[in-house]
Amino acid sequence: MATFKLDERLAGDSVLVTNIGLCQLRLMNDSRWPWLILVPQRDNICEMFDLAPLDQAMLTFETNLVAEALKKVKGAEKINVAAIGNIVRQLHVHVIARYENDANWPGPVWGYGERQPYPEAEKAALVKYILDAL
Amino acid sequence: MATFKLDERLAGDSVLVTNIGLCQLRLMNDSRWPWLILVPQRDNICEMFDLAPLDQAMLTFETNLVAEALKKVKGAEKINVAAIGNIVRQLHVHVIARYENDANWPGPVWGYGERQPYPEAEKAALVKYILDAL
Repeated sequence: MATFKLDERLAGDSVLVTNIGLCQLRLMNDSRWPWLILVPQRDNICEMFDLAPLDQAMLTFETNLVAEALKKVKGAEKINVAAIGNIVRQLHVHVIARYENDANWPGPVWGYGERQPYPEAEKAALVKYILDAL
Repeated sequence: MATFKLDERLAGDSVLVTNIGLCQLRLMNDSRWPWLILVPQRDNICEMFDLAPLDQAMLTFETNLVAEALKKVKGAEKINVAAIGNIVRQLHVHVIARYENDANWPGPVWGYGERQPYPEAEKAALVKYILDAL
């Protein structure tokens, strides 16, 4: 893992919450939805099936752990989980809390409108809140 | 698994390719993209983390098996994998082959335009092609 380097676009669009084993857990800096991403700290991985089998299992475990915690603490109607990567090819898994009155419900979040960054204090508070929930 | 009942909307929008253990593997009847879905044959499951731990691992295994085969046989640029379920709540995982010249690249497929059903012969041939690839 020494040579792992986070994609620059992911780094710019999100902030680190914590390191949860295989993955960096990051908060997308978009206040329209509670939106986390998990980034496996492995080099040159584009698809989930490019990971070693044990890493695939670990990614599932970490994703579902985060998804369940997010649904519980944010009272979401539904959790959306996805590995898309059409733009940023470094493997990353989205975990997003959705609500029936949210922006673009029931449509997808990707490619919808403009990102709305959090105020700094709100972002720091949410990071702490998520960290406490894990 | 005796009481598992496929959601009616999923049944109407897709056709069975095969049963691969935990999941039904189905082809979405939308010729715009090679688009498979996996439906775990368990009742009353909405989120991936609602599955028993062993089923979570099995779903990962089956999803990645299908995703790798689809990328290989369809020569895709990128595979999109997602569990969204904002409309149909029965847990189902999308596995979609994407291309740089496809409808809505690099945006998501969900909610984009109108479904374009396959001609019957083409659909049957694709089902057979995918089945042979697994």
